[in-house]
Amino acid sequence: MKLISLPASPFARKARVVVIELGLQNRVEIVDPGVVTPVSNNEGLNDINPLGMIPSLVLDSGEGLYDSPVICEYLNHIGGGSLFPDNIDARFKALQLQALADGIMDVSVALRYELAMRPAELHWQAFIDNQAEKIERSLAQLEQQCDEFSREPTIGELTVACALGYRDFRFAEADWREVHPKLAKWFESMMGRESLSLTVPI
Amino acid sequence: MKLISLPASPFARKARVVVIELGLQNRVEIVDPGVVTPVSNNEGLNDINPLGMIPSLVLDSGEGLYDSPVICEYLNHIGGGSLFPDNIDARFKALQLQALADGIMDVSVALRYELAMRPAELHWQAFIDNQAEKIERSLAQLEQQCDEFSREPTIGELTVACALGYRDFRFAEADWREVHPKLAKWFESMMGRESLSLTVPI
Repeated sequence: MKLISLPASPFARKARVVVIELGLQNRVEIVDPGVVTPVSNNEGLNDINPLGMIPSLVLDSGEGLYDSPVICEYLNHIGGGSLFPDNIDARFKALQLQALADGIMDVSVALRYELAMRPAELHWQAFIDNQAEKIERSLAQLEQQCDEFSREPTIGELTVACALGYRDFRFAEADWREVHPKLAKWFESMMGRESLSLTVPI
Repeated sequence: MKLISLPASPFARKARVVVIELGLQNRVEIVDPGVVTPVSNNEGLNDINPLGMIPSLVLDSGEGLYDSPVICEYLNHIGGGSLFPDNIDARFKALQLQALADGIMDVSVALRYELAMRPAELHWQAFIDNQAEKIERSLAQLEQQCDEFSREPTIGELTVACALGYRDFRFAEADWREVHPKLAKWFESMMGRESLSLTVPI
């Protein structure tokens, strides 16, 4: 199967991290679709995913699978992984953490589109400020929570690492480490994993 | 437990539909948080969900659970439902359909924010056009697919109904029925369900 992915996309990174965590590199080919922005169209991608979004998985049947939580759960299933725990309490804890980290990525990508793609004269400062507050509150929550993160990472912890990596990639000037020292230490230890070190956004 | 919800939110509607489908009305109190927009802050909601997003579920322990796919899967679990099928093929079919319909809602809400909340002089026409194309392609895909929809609705079919309901609610001028007659017929039959007829957005 093929994973339509871009090196800069945090959601695509999450899927690539899962591929590596599960040792599925020989079964999943990473395909670069070319330019994908909120104002571009990419016909090959659109044929697979009418929403035109990254990542999308192309199954051997030719069918498309998305969005990133669905792709990751599918990869976990075919790879026989435990990134989505079977135990119900652990499962919902992992899904909840994934949702929070996905939300940080969603808001960060929306901010990136606003600041780097939308023409400067069309920026909406109230929106920019509000999104930045969502990020701050969410990072503060992770700082509180990270003592309880699973030692054996689930999809939740892996997504948090991708979200923090995206902050470093696109918002390096907003240093999150100083006010979130526990989270910074946790992130540093996570970056020892091959899945994360091999997929740093570029 | 409490479901923080707003009558106009398609994602909150999905969760309310699931509550009714599973007969959980006595266990889930619906709570209106007041105004939630991309430029507003709502402290009560932010305490539960730092992303400040609707819907959010407040468990009896006081913990928050989100986003809508996680809430719906949790409700399905405690309600002993089959909206998220156990059979693997059926499960991923349902999750895939949910993701497509959630995507239509995401793009529609983003368009609504652009057109109705962002000051008119800050509108970005290239973005508006691109989002409208995503919707058109996705509805065309549903028109093709709807013959294969499950007769006993899964979370996928229920989400599609919420997405179409949101189109009618916020984009009534863009008549999707004429070019998608099979989907229109399917939607009409779905609206016979109490879960959907009781939650029409207002």
